[in-house]
Amino acid sequence: MDQRAVVAVDIGGTAVKAALVSAELVALRELRRPSERAGGAVALAPVAAMITELAADAEVVGVGVVVPGIVDDAAGVVRAAVNLGWVDLPLRAELAAAVGLPLRVGHDVRAGGLAEFTVGAAAGVANAFFTAIGTGIAAAAKVDGHLLAGGGYAGEFGHIVVDQAGDVCGCGTVGCLETLAAAPALPRRYRALTGVERTAQEIAGLVGADPAATLVWEDAVRALGTALHTAVTLFGPEVVVLGGGLSEAGAALVDPVAADLDRRLSFQRRPRVVRAALGQQAGRAGAALMAWEAAGITPAAAL
Amino acid sequence: MDQRAVVAVDIGGTAVKAALVSAELVALRELRRPSERAGGAVALAPVAAMITELAADAEVVGVGVVVPGIVDDAAGVVRAAVNLGWVDLPLRAELAAAVGLPLRVGHDVRAGGLAEFTVGAAAGVANAFFTAIGTGIAAAAKVDGHLLAGGGYAGEFGHIVVDQAGDVCGCGTVGCLETLAAAPALPRRYRALTGVERTAQEIAGLVGADPAATLVWEDAVRALGTALHTAVTLFGPEVVVLGGGLSEAGAALVDPVAADLDRRLSFQRRPRVVRAALGQQAGRAGAALMAWEAAGITPAAAL
Repeated sequence: MDQRAVVAVDIGGTAVKAALVSAELVALRELRRPSERAGGAVALAPVAAMITELAADAEVVGVGVVVPGIVDDAAGVVRAAVNLGWVDLPLRAELAAAVGLPLRVGHDVRAGGLAEFTVGAAAGVANAFFTAIGTGIAAAAKVDGHLLAGGGYAGEFGHIVVDQAGDVCGCGTVGCLETLAAAPALPRRYRALTGVERTAQEIAGLVGADPAATLVWEDAVRALGTALHTAVTLFGPEVVVLGGGLSEAGAALVDPVAADLDRRLSFQRRPRVVRAALGQQAGRAGAALMAWEAAGITPAAAL
Repeated sequence: MDQRAVVAVDIGGTAVKAALVSAELVALRELRRPSERAGGAVALAPVAAMITELAADAEVVGVGVVVPGIVDDAAGVVRAAVNLGWVDLPLRAELAAAVGLPLRVGHDVRAGGLAEFTVGAAAGVANAFFTAIGTGIAAAAKVDGHLLAGGGYAGEFGHIVVDQAGDVCGCGTVGCLETLAAAPALPRRYRALTGVERTAQEIAGLVGADPAATLVWEDAVRALGTALHTAVTLFGPEVVVLGGGLSEAGAALVDPVAADLDRRLSFQRRPRVVRAALGQQAGRAGAALMAWEAAGITPAAAL
């Protein structure tokens, strides 16, 4: 067993999660601390301190850092991360200088896709599409073996329009996928229909028994089917991987979405629709893969 | 000047066009013949004869062949080409054996994109999106420097849904982009409103003067703006190139589409929207570029 390890970091607006990760992509030690801010922006010194702390008692060879927003992985620059208060931040250069280790920066959902495409539900597939359905919705597409970044601007799957007569999204557009299928959309729509507070998970459990839950869930399924029809038409994936919090519903989500998508397709390639294999750990696994890559090493899990 | 040349071939359901093309991508000699069929499928022997004829009086080093349909460029196999009557045809192997020259096979619109991305309106841009708006609508996307093929299934831009209450498309789906913005959609919709036959070009010329022409044209513009909003959200291009027959309308198409798209975007990258530089010759130029690549030579035009 390789004694070397990497540090995988997930910087969010609420918390920073960091883990010491083995070559088998097993978390050996984890830290989770509230995101500290300076002048509205998440500060880097406390993040660097977490990395240094984890690196103190292991032979750490690289660091992978993932963040939400518009992230130019190749340049290591965060173009815009609203939740973190960052604009045009040269994150890789600043953090690498602070910790003195090979370091890669990437988008959290694209990192999740990298993990699913490398060691997860679409391992070894040349054309695959991964979407993380959580508080927001984003996607990572692998086409002809290349994971698409588009300079950081690709994959904003949650903001394609699926309902031209729908609600206004936070981005200002009417009827984005997020207005119907992001995790917060289900409780909001259920509350509007019934006045009752229920979590997305509770709503999933009431499908078939409760008409309002059934309607809200089926709208989310149809929205995902509509959006995936577009993604499949443009990217041509062999496998579609559903991840993020909403995918914890398992077959209750995957089966109807697969059926809805299948019904919409005609001449396009018909992909398999599967649940993410790495669950909520996809982003961390992707950050770890990036860290091993930063060190120039193929980790055991990816062999 | 390089005395060597290549043969660029465009196989369509009605005609086969072949040209002897210089390293400067100038057509030195052109042939155009009706597509000959055997048992419903376009026959290859007459195509091979055209290539051999053009190669007889020049130092031909390679051949590039483009076709419509689902084309796996990397494998050189046409998965499905309805207009040509082909299913799973190993076109590259069969034609290369017949002509005895290095030969590449590709999708006609992706070849057009290759040309626009290499020597045309988006030369040197790492992230660009090209759409050919003609009898059908398809697209080629370049992301992070890679031209996407998706095993032949990527880029079916004409079949993403832009109007959920719209007409049924030939593919069986309601409200595809092609139902509103492909070249035949404009005369068909104008006729339905007025009973009068007009070409797409005539309709473009009547915008502002004739209410029916204005409505049909503005619907096409909005449909393209809607579809490009989706493409920009998923691919993040810096430049959007409008090509194909409808782009012959020039600023009458490009300006309102650019304005419509710009109005829809929020956090996304705002691409420049430009008219194709190579016009109707983009596919041939792309086939020629593929032919030079088959020969292992960078043509002068691409230097």
